[in-house]
Formats: sequence, structure tokens, C-alpha cells
Amino acid sequence: MFKGKYIDGNARVGELKIGTHTVTTPVFMPCGTKGTVKALTHEQVKSLGFDLFLCNTYHLMLRPGEDEIKKRGGLHKWINWDGLLLTDSGGFQVFSLGNLNRITGEGVEFSSYLDGAKRFLTPEDAIEIQFKLGADIIMAFDECAPGDSSKAYAKTAMKRTHEWALKCIKAYERCKKKYQRSPLLFPIAQGVVFEDLRIESVKFMANLPLPGLAIGGLSVGESKKDMYGTLAAISPFFPAEKPRYLMGVGSPEDIVEAVFHGIDMFDCVLPTRLARHGSFWTNDGLHHLKNAEFKRGEKPLMKNCTCPACKNHSASYIRHLLMENEMTGTTLLTMHNLHFLKQLTEEMQKAIQLHHFDKFRKEFQAKFKRTRDSLL
Amino acid sequence: MFKGKYIDGNARVGELKIGTHTVTTPVFMPCGTKGTVKALTHEQVKSLGFDLFLCNTYHLMLRPGEDEIKKRGGLHKWINWDGLLLTDSGGFQVFSLGNLNRITGEGVEFSSYLDGAKRFLTPEDAIEIQFKLGADIIMAFDECAPGDSSKAYAKTAMKRTHEWALKCIKAYERCKKKYQRSPLLFPIAQGVVFEDLRIESVKFMANLPLPGLAIGGLSVGESKKDMYGTLAAISPFFPAEKPRYLMGVGSPEDIVEAVFHGIDMFDCVLPTRLARHGSFWTNDGLHHLKNAEFKRGEKPLMKNCTCPACKNHSASYIRHLLMENEMTGTTLLTMHNLHFLKQLTEEMQKAIQLHHFDKFRKEFQAKFKRTRDSLL
Repeated sequence: MFKGKYIDGNARVGELKIGTHTVTTPVFMPCGTKGTVKALTHEQVKSLGFDLFLCNTYHLMLRPGEDEIKKRGGLHKWINWDGLLLTDSGGFQVFSLGNLNRITGEGVEFSSYLDGAKRFLTPEDAIEIQFKLGADIIMAFDECAPGDSSKAYAKTAMKRTHEWALKCIKAYERCKKKYQRSPLLFPIAQGVVFEDLRIESVKFMANLPLPGLAIGGLSVGESKKDMYGTLAAISPFFPAEKPRYLMGVGSPEDIVEAVFHGIDMFDCVLPTRLARHGSFWTNDGLHHLKNAEFKRGEKPLMKNCTCPACKNHSASYIRHLLMENEMTGTTLLTMHNLHFLKQLTEEMQKAIQLHHFDKFRKEFQAKFKRTRDSLL
Repeated sequence: MFKGKYIDGNARVGELKIGTHTVTTPVFMPCGTKGTVKALTHEQVKSLGFDLFLCNTYHLMLRPGEDEIKKRGGLHKWINWDGLLLTDSGGFQVFSLGNLNRITGEGVEFSSYLDGAKRFLTPEDAIEIQFKLGADIIMAFDECAPGDSSKAYAKTAMKRTHEWALKCIKAYERCKKKYQRSPLLFPIAQGVVFEDLRIESVKFMANLPLPGLAIGGLSVGESKKDMYGTLAAISPFFPAEKPRYLMGVGSPEDIVEAVFHGIDMFDCVLPTRLARHGSFWTNDGLHHLKNAEFKRGEKPLMKNCTCPACKNHSASYIRHLLMENEMTGTTLLTMHNLHFLKQLTEEMQKAIQLHHFDKFRKEFQAKFKRTRDSLL
């Protein structure tokens, strides 16, 4: 399934094989929350070189519903995507989006973000729903505590997440028989920013008989210092033979830092969301296209960039589209931002292969103004 | 420039050659008001088979301004479109969008739709602005009277439009030397729905030493009966050797009827605007994708349709995207509607070539529920 290919310090290049697909890591996975990467057609996503994106269980179970999607032959067939898909467990959204009513050992009661209707979601439900959706990689149900949680609550949430992981494994075995499918199930380590809890959780999850390890609950309000410190602390306990997925990250600077600590997989709404807000990355940081500096001239968004937006258009033309509320402007910026992260992961792969990763990282950090600068 | 190839009654197939480009008529030109066809990248527009689209002088002169666009090398270079472009004269928008302040023989004073600033636009300005924009086909400045105008006002507006056409020709000759370019200039016949005025105007405009003839001021509030009646009345006076362009039309049923009366070129915001409102055409008429009937099932928007939306996706998936406010839904519907009109013009070309156009028209009318049904 997963094979390390090159290693440079803690950073590594690997190959995740699923069916006929091979994903080279480090990899960034775009978010296609409701079955589409926002502002793009699948054709455009493919043309950027992405073969794997993420859909959100929480949104899809509420509308159109997992049974409806199953009836249409599952996610791949319903949205007509012949690449790979990953679904999260719904846990993160239940804790961040829904009105959370009640958490017990059994599961979570929340109110739908659509109409306030009460739903109770258990680890067993989360697994069965994901089997019905039919993604290639599915996630265990976790309790995602906020970045400013007390240690006591962080520990309670972590313990519950461990118990739920075991329940998810049992549910997985049942579903595997029932649905005759074997997606990869990844457990999610928690523990907020408490190093001892994080280490305990990583050790626990890494030892489960599962083919991957996810780190959840970072990038949820803690400082960059805390995030990077946590990664440094848990990195020694990462399993060599499993892909490590840092959920909800992120910004270019966070991705580079996390790869430095041994992370292989990423997902984040940032590239697509920033595009919808008129922002884009270049090698020197984040820029806001509506700023007057981009009003004139023929320069592309980023020098030497080979994305469709930069190859075909000037920044000032794309700015004009944004100012006029033309959707095409958002589409072009989305392509640029996703291409930027795709390019970044490919450059990291190269640097690791050449044992230059530390040099690459330092050069990157020297020129790239951090997206969330105030947090360090 | 224009060459008739096949004729069947008044309907005809022709070829409009501009530079290295050949446009086969009847042709529908998508609207790219502000330099982009709404919700599509140029790549997507091209992939649908369109080589010619329309930009609006009124919008572009106000923002970013014709001088700014000229500085960037003109419209083609600025938006990076290697196909053909047509600009309207701004006349229609001055009369329909702006707050019209004053009309004199010299021109029109209006308030900008952006900030209310007063502008005075003359026929000479309209031509020079279009030269600065640099489209391949440009339009004379006209006074577009509403469909319910009195005959007295219709006549005044028509007479003024004739005088302005002469002024436009003089301005064109000056600009041709000044800018060293020779775009095609089309005059616009007016006359509201008064047959004698329409005939007078068509005769006047057809006799000008210009390479085309446009019919303006239809589809501006008059009934379908009046529009079709007007077309029938003026059709005998169409020049054989020039392309005839019916501005702002339209719906599939209006296009078929207008081709029957000898029209060669069309533009309209309908396919793109309907898409943004969740509506789409099939061979039996207009449908609203948000209706519950499309909620389930695996059928495409239209049986046997070869557009990217229908080839790749079910109607219910695209409906889901619309319900979730995913831009991709609008992009897919836009592609379908534009493809529908492209397909329709190609089918008409074939029917004319085979001398089956009247049969085609009758079959089309028998199955197609009119887009603006209440008007007949």
C-alpha cells in the first residue's frame, strides 16, 4: 500500500498505491466538500495534476444523504470522478459547524447546519456512512477538541477518540463484509497541544492494525509555534511504514514545516477559499489581487508560473474579472492556488530525493512571507 | 468577406471570412460582456466550438476604460483571446442601462451605471472607442427605442440613427487611418415594430457601403408576433451579399424563426443568464433544474447531448451543485446552454444545405415549448 522511496531527515517521499492509482507523497488533496472542488470542473482539477480529493461526510450525509448517493452507485459514480477520493468522518464538522448538543461514549448529538434537525452520530454510523459513500480512504470518528482546550478536556476527548477508534475498527470489519469493499481506514490522533497527550495518542493510533495515521485537531486555533512544537514532539513516534496525514493543513509554510517533521498527506480549504476571497500565493507569500498594485501592467500573478491562469492571463485582467464579480476570476485564482501547492509538493519531493530538503526549507522560509504571519 | 453557400427559401448558410478565421453562418455569438463569457474560461468557450464572441463597449469604456485596454494592446491581447471579437456600440446599453439624461443630434448624455457620473457619447466617440478596443467587427451607434414607443418617437429615433450611421462612417474612415486597422463596421437598422419604418431603415442601412447589416431594437419588449411580423416584412429587403445580424436574439425558437427569415448572426445573454438562474434548454423547451423532478435519477440534462455537462454528469448531480450554491453547477449549465445553441445552428446549417429547412423548422416548433411562451 504505502512504500517509502526517499528519506531526508524526517522528510520523505513515498508512494501510496490504491488499485491502479499511485499517489506520490508529500501530496496535497484539494477539498471537494460537497462533491466538487469549488469553482472547478473535474476536468480542470485533473488538468492540474490532482488524482485524489476529499469530500466531507458531514455535508453529504445531510444532503443529498448517504443512501441517495449509494443508490446512485456511490460517490465516484455519482460525481463521475475516476480518480481517488477520501472522506473525513464528519467528526471535525460536528464539532466545528453543527450546534453540538451532547457528547457521550456512544457518540455525538448535534443539530444539522441546514435546518437545525437533531442527529445522533456514532463511530459505527460514521464508518457505515462512509462505506455507503464509497471513498477509497475513510477516516475514523474522532472528538476534535479546540486548540484552547484545558488539559483535562483534551485528555477526556483523546481517550474517547481512542475508544471510538476501536469501535470504528469493529464497524469496519462488519461493513467490509456487508458492502464487499476494503477502503483504507485511517485513525486520527488527538491531544490538542499537550505534548504528552499527543505522544500517547500517536503511539496508540500508530499501533492499531490500520494502514495509515492521521493527525487531527491541529490548525484549529492554536498558534503556529504550538503546531510546529507538537509536530516536533510527535514526529519520533510516527510509524515508518504508514502514510501520515495532517488534517486541515494548509498554508504553504505549514506544509513545508510539516513535511520537515515527516508528514506525507495534507488537505485544506485554504487554496480554494483564498481564491474566492481574491487572494493568491506566490513564492514570496500571500497577495490580495484587489489591491491597487495589480490594477495595471501585463505581469502574471506569479513569474514563471505554468498554471492556466498565469500562462494565459495578466494579473490585471484577472483582477478586472474579480472587480466585476465574474466567476471566471475565481476559477482562475483557484487554479493558480491549487497549482501552487501541487508545484510545492513536487519541488519538495525533488529536494528530498536530492537530500536538499533542509536547504529547500530554509530558502522557502527566507522568501515566503507567512500566510498567518501574526501567529508566530 | 461574406459568401453565401447554400440557400433554402430565405434561410441560408454562409461563410464570413475575417483574417484567417472563417465563421459559418447561421452563427450564435456568446456574450462576454466584460471580456469573459460568464462562468467559463476561454478554454471552455473554445472547447464548445465558439470562435467569435461579443464584448460590450458600454461596460468596458466605463471600466477599465478603452485607453487602459488600448495600452494593454487591445481587447484580444488583454483578455488573451485568439478568436474573433465583436463589440457593440454602447448604444443599446446607454438606452437600456444608464440613466438617460439627454439625446441630441450630437449624441447622448447618460449617467454611468457604476457611479452615476455624467458622460456624453457621440457616434464619433463610439467608433473611436471601438477602434481602441480593437474588435474584429464593430457596430455603428444607434438610438434604440423601446418596443412600445409611439410611431412619432420611433421615426425620430430612426432618422437620428440614420444620421449617426453616416457620422459613424466618416469617423470610421478617420480612425482607419489613425489606428491602421480595418475592422468590419455594421450599421444597425431601427424602426421599432412599424413595418414602413423598418423597411425604410433596412433599405437605408443596406445601401451604405458597409460589409454587413444589423437589425437592432427587436427583442426589447415587443411581442413575439410583432418581432416575427417585423422580420417577415423586412426580409425581402435584406442585401444578398452581406451578413445580417439580429442583435440581442435569443431564444432557440426566435433563432429558428429568424433564420427562416434570412438572419445569419445572433447574440444574446439568454444561454448564460438562464444558466445562472438554474435553467436549461432541451429539444422540448426550457427546464428549471431546481424543480423536484430532477432531484433523483441518473439521466443527463438532455438525452444524447454531447456537451461536457451531459457527457459527464447526471442532471441530479448538477442540481445538487446548484442547490449547494456551487459555482461549478453554473459553469456546467452554461456549457450545456451554449452547446445547445451551437448544436442548433449546426443542425440548421445542415437542414438548409439539404433543402430541408422548412421541415426542420416545423419539427422544431412542434416539439419545442417556447422560452417566452406567454408572448405569442
